[in-house]
This record gives sequence, structure tokens and C-alpha cells, in this order.
Amino acid sequence: MTFEIKYKDARGRAGVLKTPHGTLKTPALMPVIHPGKQTLDVSKYGAEMVITNAYLIYKNMDLRVKALKDGVHELINFSGPIMTDSGSFQLSLYGDIDVSNREIVEFQEKIGTDIGTSLDIPTPPFVGRRRAEEEMEVTLSRAKEALEVRNSLMLNSVVQGSTYPDLRAKCAQTLSEMDFDIHPIGAVVPLMESYQYSTLLDVIMASVENLPDSRPRHLMGAGHPMIFSFAVALGCDFFDSAAYILYAQDDRLLMPDGTYKLENLVEMPCSCPICNSYSPEELRIMKKAERTKLLAQHNLHISLAEIRQIRQSIADGSLWELVEKRCRNHPYLLDALRKMKKYTSELERYDPPYKKTAFFYSGPESLNRPEVHRHLERLNRLPRKKRLLLLPPTEKPYSKHVDQGVMNFYSNMKISDYSNTKIPDLAKFSGENLQIVVVDIPFVVIPLEIDEVYPLAQNEAPQTMDQDARKFLRDHLERFVEGYQEILVSAEALEIFNIPLENLDITGNPFHENEIKIPSINSLLNDEIKIRYIADYQFGSGSGKALFDGETNIIKSKKTGKIRYIYDGDDLIATLRARDGVLVLGMEGARRLHSHLPYPINRVVVNEDAEPFAREGKSIFAKFIIDCDMNIRASEEVLVVNQDDELLAFGKSILNAEEFTSFNTGQAVKTRKGGF
Amino acid sequence: MTFEIKYKDARGRAGVLKTPHGTLKTPALMPVIHPGKQTLDVSKYGAEMVITNAYLIYKNMDLRVKALKDGVHELINFSGPIMTDSGSFQLSLYGDIDVSNREIVEFQEKIGTDIGTSLDIPTPPFVGRRRAEEEMEVTLSRAKEALEVRNSLMLNSVVQGSTYPDLRAKCAQTLSEMDFDIHPIGAVVPLMESYQYSTLLDVIMASVENLPDSRPRHLMGAGHPMIFSFAVALGCDFFDSAAYILYAQDDRLLMPDGTYKLENLVEMPCSCPICNSYSPEELRIMKKAERTKLLAQHNLHISLAEIRQIRQSIADGSLWELVEKRCRNHPYLLDALRKMKKYTSELERYDPPYKKTAFFYSGPESLNRPEVHRHLERLNRLPRKKRLLLLPPTEKPYSKHVDQGVMNFYSNMKISDYSNTKIPDLAKFSGENLQIVVVDIPFVVIPLEIDEVYPLAQNEAPQTMDQDARKFLRDHLERFVEGYQEILVSAEALEIFNIPLENLDITGNPFHENEIKIPSINSLLNDEIKIRYIADYQFGSGSGKALFDGETNIIKSKKTGKIRYIYDGDDLIATLRARDGVLVLGMEGARRLHSHLPYPINRVVVNEDAEPFAREGKSIFAKFIIDCDMNIRASEEVLVVNQDDELLAFGKSILNAEEFTSFNTGQAVKTRKGGF
Repeated sequence: MTFEIKYKDARGRAGVLKTPHGTLKTPALMPVIHPGKQTLDVSKYGAEMVITNAYLIYKNMDLRVKALKDGVHELINFSGPIMTDSGSFQLSLYGDIDVSNREIVEFQEKIGTDIGTSLDIPTPPFVGRRRAEEEMEVTLSRAKEALEVRNSLMLNSVVQGSTYPDLRAKCAQTLSEMDFDIHPIGAVVPLMESYQYSTLLDVIMASVENLPDSRPRHLMGAGHPMIFSFAVALGCDFFDSAAYILYAQDDRLLMPDGTYKLENLVEMPCSCPICNSYSPEELRIMKKAERTKLLAQHNLHISLAEIRQIRQSIADGSLWELVEKRCRNHPYLLDALRKMKKYTSELERYDPPYKKTAFFYSGPESLNRPEVHRHLERLNRLPRKKRLLLLPPTEKPYSKHVDQGVMNFYSNMKISDYSNTKIPDLAKFSGENLQIVVVDIPFVVIPLEIDEVYPLAQNEAPQTMDQDARKFLRDHLERFVEGYQEILVSAEALEIFNIPLENLDITGNPFHENEIKIPSINSLLNDEIKIRYIADYQFGSGSGKALFDGETNIIKSKKTGKIRYIYDGDDLIATLRARDGVLVLGMEGARRLHSHLPYPINRVVVNEDAEPFAREGKSIFAKFIIDCDMNIRASEEVLVVNQDDELLAFGKSILNAEEFTSFNTGQAVKTRKGGF
Repeated sequence: MTFEIKYKDARGRAGVLKTPHGTLKTPALMPVIHPGKQTLDVSKYGAEMVITNAYLIYKNMDLRVKALKDGVHELINFSGPIMTDSGSFQLSLYGDIDVSNREIVEFQEKIGTDIGTSLDIPTPPFVGRRRAEEEMEVTLSRAKEALEVRNSLMLNSVVQGSTYPDLRAKCAQTLSEMDFDIHPIGAVVPLMESYQYSTLLDVIMASVENLPDSRPRHLMGAGHPMIFSFAVALGCDFFDSAAYILYAQDDRLLMPDGTYKLENLVEMPCSCPICNSYSPEELRIMKKAERTKLLAQHNLHISLAEIRQIRQSIADGSLWELVEKRCRNHPYLLDALRKMKKYTSELERYDPPYKKTAFFYSGPESLNRPEVHRHLERLNRLPRKKRLLLLPPTEKPYSKHVDQGVMNFYSNMKISDYSNTKIPDLAKFSGENLQIVVVDIPFVVIPLEIDEVYPLAQNEAPQTMDQDARKFLRDHLERFVEGYQEILVSAEALEIFNIPLENLDITGNPFHENEIKIPSINSLLNDEIKIRYIADYQFGSGSGKALFDGETNIIKSKKTGKIRYIYDGDDLIATLRARDGVLVLGMEGARRLHSHLPYPINRVVVNEDAEPFAREGKSIFAKFIIDCDMNIRASEEVLVVNQDDELLAFGKSILNAEEFTSFNTGQAVKTRKGGF
């Protein structure tokens, strides 16, 4: 079985899992198939993998005989990959079951399950610590035993530990050192049933952060589409749904925005074939069995559509937007979204810095997104100039509209304000000694040099600011201006930024000119200043000087007037990608960056086997990577080197550093060019 | 043609429109049918009414002849109601058309259109005021002319006035005095195309507020499902969609959360039959015509599903929740949602106070909802006691958990705090002289007597408060406590409420007891105090005394222990409805309330014709209502009287006061009992 990541967003991944019974896309929903009673062919609704219960088969003599004779695929009439559960669910329900771990693992192998499960103990939430610990130890020892017993059966191994994050972490760590294929996160159903999504968040994060990135994770028992996008954004890949049939039996319809009771419906709420063909009244007067079947179909349709939409949003880079919308479906889910703030740095490591779609601000929670955190961190590592000019926001990209903005800025200012306010005679400065920034939500401070770099131009926020945004702006702006000796700003702008003048420790003498010269702001910034700053922002301080020192030839697009190529003579140093304002290295650029940045910064180190392929410009597969800069995120421009730090190639990372080292399958770097 | 309201929520309504060609539900989407080129049978996808273009038929000799001979229903092969547009769209595109208003109105009547349109001038947004005014006058005069020309043709009359709210208002007012059947709100497409939803909000509100409630309103040219719920919440009933086919021709998929380009899709994003049956790749390699047809089907499926979900959410009383979710689909839509704050009082008049579903807080915007505004207004009109005890929030209903809450409140307080803090010796007080309130978001102050009245118990908010909620709590709490002589509160609670001690003008002496007696908070409130307060809150100050004076016999539910019935001897005064804690009048209660409340408070006055029916307990139809208390909202308990203010019956309002007087069709009051 192999698992590969195709697209990444937030901590989620859209991947491909190859199994002996076929290949499927993840995130995936596995409908639960009752081995004796199933009447619905779930593959017709798009299910690519299912889960069934080995214990129920084992306990029923007819089913057992048939499964041992014909195999589980024949038994439940499903030709795709099948996962089997071991009876832990029955254990959690009835307290005891009459099969041993060894027996049920051996049985699963015999009936030809694709992925079997050992007999873990599903410890409920909020039990005493001692019980949680003891039961976790049993779970671990049964996991070990399963490895010994199995022949070639692939195995699930369930993370337990109740609601103790450290126990979940310990369990995950221990399991990650053993040879398992998928990791369910177990015993979370009671949390979901009682809407305790904040605790669920902690349980998932403690587990995921300690499981290998190369193995899929399965949020066990999660079958309500309301929760899918949230769990995927935290790193879950599999869900299983008995809900589609259980809710149907109870005359309830699943929807991504909650649950609808058939008795309350005056309309069918979705676009699925069932909702298109029947009225609520028609369903209500139908015979129970027929109705249940139709509602189960609706439930499958809508659940699988939600999974497809999640995969699409990962490919688009809009998973955060989807999660922020879905979390409005219940205030407790919104609370969990708000509490994700404490995991921002963890999530940031996995979130690709460059995406296809714009960042949409959907409320105060958007301030906690990795993109915002990353930008403020990156700004912090850049050197400071002495003087700072703070400009109010305009339309984006700012540099296009800033001169009009500055005109308004001055023309709205009264003469009487001058003595108390910093009025810059801008003509005295240039971009060399003056840092010009636009102040805006959600990125707070946007240096004009990088105003077209993703996501600083590719974002939208409502004009009406919420109080959290005001506070965020004030707090971060106050911190940002600290390093500057002189701050140029109008009182009016401070009002816009919501900053009391006295809080800003403005040093230096105020300007007292009667006539203020207003040069074009853009004229203060030349192209060299701009590309160097972009490089510093993207690759770290000093990179701009290293890449663009000496004579550079900047070629602009005739159509847009934007910088496109930067050459040294005939040698391409870099391209400025029009879509997102990001520098894409050329041969010469890669060479220069490699000499400038000390090992291991920005490096992906491959072994000898991969060296010739890398030099030929072939893509780098994860299994050849032996080391890397642990700060690499997915979608970044990286250098590919050998163990002696000789530059072999350069390209775009598809995975992040943790994933480079965890995965043994799939592409890791899409090489742009080799041949050094 | 008759229009009736069945369910109400926000300013939206789910209604039924009867036309000569059949009855349909509103809100409704009318797919645009091209009279010559249509290949898709839109009725197969659930469209109950369509719109087609009379000018295009008029201009094409073949179509004209066929339409005049067989009628427009035969021409476009649609047997349901048909609306025709007059050519204004072509006028807006090409600046001039060669048909007169008179001609096109006559033509529409001849071809058997259900609802025709006069030749209005679609003035674009942001034109000069003079042009907007002049063109509006032309639109008005053509509307008048259409009335003169038409025989029995029903007529649309379009509200114009560009982006000048006062012109929109004037146009709407003028049209509302004339005999039209439906009112399109025109020339808003450019606003939607450029995401100027805040301006759209102002245009819709200025129009809707000045149109008769009894006529459906049509947001002309709105065909993107992203905007439907927002527009419905503001009072729009009809949409028309050419988008389903135009977007399909352009390989774009409509979704309630935005637009997807087929070229970017890796998955089909919804549950509709098309998204279930095809992959993006299969669609991409298909022939253009075939693909366009399938994408148009998807677009119709998803648009009509959104309309169904909107109708369902109106019936459920969860339209606000839907709107608040949909408005997260674009930051400019979120901005419009935030700007709806200025219309809260207008919206509140139409929003039913009692709903089936809980109030879900989805972000700072929820603070602007009518429910919150209404509660704070109602509290203001109640008399004040001298002393106020502020309690921190607990689980809901508060009265069930408040005693445990109070225990925690004291046990967490340190002795050293006492001298600076108000420590109540609660045993000294009773509910007669002490107002006990819980402080919580979003309703700020919840007197314990009414903690189970909708929506004070039926709401959820995230535990993690946003800054707007903190500010809202502080501002409103500061205002609320002003009238009290003594405020009992712990410093800890003030911290929870985010209120600096010095801001609270706390008078009276602090308590200095070493031993604090903590009686049960609930024991301070007896049932009499409770039901009187509920009545005062629901019907206005003094109603409690009027209803429950003298001997009352309070019967509680054996199962829940809650108050169910309040009798005077054998006479039922009122029932306390278990679902939402609202008082439902009995005969005796209606009688008492009628003598207590001066005319016209809480009255619906019916004419002589209706009097016998009302006395028999038959429901009251809008056309019989000749006067009413203009403060009546839908879903309230009201008194039905004759012109001499004799009590005839009592019941539940289905419409609000404005609608009582505007409508001539449909039920207005669901009578509970007559027979006085």
C-alpha cells in the first residue's frame, strides 16, 4: 500500500492511496457496511472504499464460513478496498466481547481484508487519568501483538488516550515507530455527539502532531459532513460513516450545515437526485423501508459531495475559507475554530505559503490564519531602515493606487494639525532610507516593495472592521514601529489605524513646512530596491543583495508593465511570477542563492542514487531525500544538493520538510532545472 | 393573481402565488427562457415559473406570428406562469430600441403573458442625480401608460432610481399607489457584477420599505445563488436567472459559495445528478454543446436547491443563520451583512419574535440581529427595582444551573476582596426587591424570571468571546445598570463581563459580613413573580398584574416540573408553552388583557362581516382587518376586536401590523378561540 500527497492546504492533504484492491483519492469517506444486512450498493454513490466489522462476521457462523471461503470482498459484494474493524466498538458498547486480539487479527487476514485492526480499547473522554493510561497500554500491547500475528495483512493502529493530550501524543509516538499503515484516532464519537469540538481539536492535534505524515489518519466514527472540513484541515484523511444509514433509519437528513428532521421539512434541502425527485410529504407517507433507503442515498450523496468539495478546496488552496464557513454551522464549532489559534504555528509549518486563490477574511478567526502569522514573522526577520512612512490602505495592489491615496491623505489634513504631527517632506527621502508601508487588515504592515507578493495583494476583507481586527492592527503595529527612529504618519491615518498618538513613541522633530512637496510614492522605490526586498522577504535577509548584485537587466511585461525577468547578461537570475509576485529562480539565481545561503538553508539533500536524475532535471522523489532545511514549506523555491552540498538542481517543493523526511513514496520536489 | 404569506423570517417570507397558469411557492427563481433558442426543459429541474423576453419575440417575425397565433405558453413550450420582459434590458445594452411602451404592453397582452412589463429605463448605478431623476420620471409615466393600455394583463412595475435611496423610495412609493401585481427592483446587475453588495443593500432596502407588503418583489437580473438568501432576508421574493445558461456557456459552475471554473476543477463540487455522474475531465473533453447543456443542468439544480433551502429556513426560523453563513462567501458580502446594522429596527418589525429553532451566534454580526435589539428594547420598557444582582453566565436555561454558578462565584472569591466589592447577603432579599439577572452574550442582561422565554434560553454562542461581543456587553450593561440604586456583583464577575469597576457607578454601602449566607437563587423567585414578569415582558408593563391578580392556580408539568397552566378557578388564564416559554392566552387571560391594555394595544380590529366568524373562532383573513396596533409582530398573541373594541376572539398573528393592513388575501390571525 502506498500513500502520496497531491495537493496540500492548511494541515490537510489531498492524496492518493494505492491498495491491493484499487486506488482511491483522499480525503475519503468509507461508508460502514453491515456484513449481514446491507441492501445499498454504496459504490453507486461514489464510495471508493468501505469499512465493515470483522467481529460481526466472526460471531455469525454463516457469515464466518462464507467469508473464510469466498473472502470478505465477495461476502459484502464490494470489489474495492475494504477496511475491517475488530470489535472495539462492540467492546465500548457492551463492555466485553468474546474474541481475543490474536484471533480477530488472524481472522481478518484470513478473510482477505485490505486493512485490519487490532483490538484496541476505546477509552471514553474525561475518564480518570489512571484508567486512560492503563487502557492505552493495553491498546499498545495489542497493537504490538497484531504486528507479530499478522502475515502480510496491513494494519490500522488506533490512537487512544481519552482526553489527555499527552497520552494521545505518547500513544501516537509509540505507534509511529512501528510498522502500521493507517492510524485511526479513536473514541472521539462521544465528543462529537456532545458538540465538544474544542476538546476534539485538542485530541486530534495531539495525535496528528505525533503521527508520521506518511500514513493516512482516520477520524474514527466521524460520519457527519458538518465536521469533515474542520478535521481535514487538522490533518485527517479518512472518515467512516454509519451515520448515512443510522440517520436515515431515524428519518434524519445529513447536511454539511447540520441535521434536518424529515418531519420538519417543507422542502428538500439539497440538489441530490433524491431531493430533486421527492417532496418531504411523499417521503413521509412512504413505507419505512423504502423511505430509509432513499434517505440513506441522500445522506451518502451529500456526504460524498462534501468530501469532493473538500478535495477541490485543497487543490484550490481555499480549504481555510471552507472551514471558516462550515464552522459557522454550530457555535461550538466556531468556538473550536477560535481555539485553533493556539495551534497556529504548528499549522503554519504545513500550510503552503503560495496558493491559487485569494485569502478571504471571514471574521476575527481569519486573523489567526497561518498566512497572517507567517507574514508578521517574516517581516520581523528583515533588517530595519531608520525611517518609516505609514500609509492608509487603498485598493490593491497598493502600489497602483497609493499615490492617489497619499494625495487624499494630505489634502484631508488641516494646517493646524501640522505642529503635532509628523508631516514628511517626502522629497527628502528615497526607498534607501525610508521604509514605506501600507497599514491594512489582515496583514497589518505591508511594505510597498512586496505589495504584489502573495497573499498581500491577493486578499479581501470587509470594509467595516470588527473590533478584533482593530485590536490586532493596533497591537501589531505598535510592536512593528518600535524599531524605527522616525515615524512619518498623519494624525488622520493614526485614527484610521485606531492608534492613540500618545501610545506611539514618535521621536525626532516634527516637520514644519508650509508647502508640502508630494512626490510620487512609487518614484521613491526603484525596481532594484523592489526585487531585492522581495528576495529578502522570500529567502531571508541578504538574499536580495546576493541575487541581484552588480549589473542586472530587468525585463518588464509590455502588456502590464510589471517586472517579469531579471537577467545578468544572458543568464536568467529569476522570473517574477505574474500570478503571485513570487520570485522563481533561474540557473544563475539558484547558483547565487546557493553560494549565499549557508547549509542547510533552503536545501533538499538527495542521496547518490538520485544525483544523476536530479542533474538531468528530473523530479525528486521523497525516498531519495536524506536531509533538508527543516524550515521548508510546500510550494517554495528550493535548492537540490548532494551530501557534499553541491548544487544539482532547483525546483518547487511539493511537500514540507517534515513530509520530505517522513514519506518514502511520491514526488517531493518538482524540479525546474538541473544541469549544474 | 393572489399572493399569500405562509411563513416569515427576518424580512423574508415564504409565500404562495396563484396565477392563471398555476400556483407556485415563493421565494422563486424564474429561469430565463430564450424564445427562439431554448433547448432545456427547465420544468424538469423544478422551475415553476419562467421569464422570457417579449421584445425578442416581437422583433422576430416567425416568433411574433407564432406567439400571436398560439400564445407565448405554446411558443416556449411551458405550461406554467410566464413573466415577460419588455426590452428594457436591450435598451440598457444598445441604448435604443424600436418599439414603444404602448406597443410592447399591448403585444404582451395579446400573446397571453401572465405578467407583463412596461418599458422602464434601467438607469445604471452612480449616474448623475439629474439623469437618475429624469429617467425615473420616464419609467413612472410609462408605468402609468401601461395601466391605461392594458386590458386584463397583470403588470410588473420596475423600481428605478439608480443608487439614490431617496429616488428609489419615491419611485417605489409612487408605484405602490397604482394597481400593479409585482415590483421588480431594476438595474442592480452592475452592482452585483462588481460585488458592491453594500450599495445593493441600500437600494433594496429603500425599495422594499416603500413597496406594499402584499405584492411580491423581484430582484431583477439576480441569478447567482450566492446572493439569494441575503436578498430574501431583505424582502425579495423573485429572482430570474439567465446565469444558469450564460455561466454554462462560459464553462462555469454556479454554487451558493461562489463560481467554479471547469478548467480548475479536480472534483465535481456538489451532490446534483450531473456532479454525481461526470468527472471534470469527462466534461472538459466533451463537445461544447453537450457540456453546456450539462453545466446548465447543474446550474439549475444548485440554484433551485438553494431556493428550496431558503424556503425551508424561513419555515424553520433559521434564515438569519443561513444568511450569516452565505455572507462569508465573499468579504464584500460580509461587509454588506455588517452594514445591515443600520436597518436593524426596520428588519425587527418584520422578524417574528418566536421561532422554531435556536438563535446561533456566528460572529459579531449576530449582535445586530433583531432578536437582540428587541430584547434590549423590551427590557427598557419594564419598570426597575432598586437592587440589581448580576450573575455570571452558566449553562442554559440559567435558572437550572444558577445555584451551582453562584456557589462557584462565592467560593472563588477571596476574603480580601470583600471590602472593595459588593457582597450581597442574599438572604435579606427576595425577588420582590431584587432584580436577579444573568449577564451573557448575545442578550447581555437576562432577568432570571424570563430565562426560558425564547430566545433567551434557545441560543448558543461560542465560549471564546470576540472583541465586539465584549464591547457590546460592556456598553449595554453600563447603560442597563444606570437606573439601579444598588448593584450586587463580585469583582470576579465584573472581570468576566469586561467592565472596569470604576466605570460602574456603584452606590450604597458594601457588605461586610464574614459569613455569607447563600440561599438558593431560585428560592428568591416564586412562580407568581415569574409569570407576572413574563407577561410584562411579553405584553408590556403592568400586564402581569392584570393577568395574574388575585387567586391563581399554577399547574406544573409532572414530568418536567415546569409551569404549564395558570387558572383562576376553572377559568384558564394562560398556558406557558413548553417549547419557548411564551404565554399563550386562555379565554380568561384574553378577557383580562383586553380590559387592562388600552385600545389599540395588542388589538386586531375586524369589520362587521368578519365579526360572526371571529366569534365562532374561525381564523381571521387579512381582508377583514380594518385597523390594528402597529406594534404587532408576526407570531405574537393578539386580541381580535370589532370597531367598538368588543373582544371577539384571540389568537396568534401570522403577519405583522404592516402586512395586516397591506394584504387583502390570506390568513392574518390564527384564532385560538372566539365565543366571547
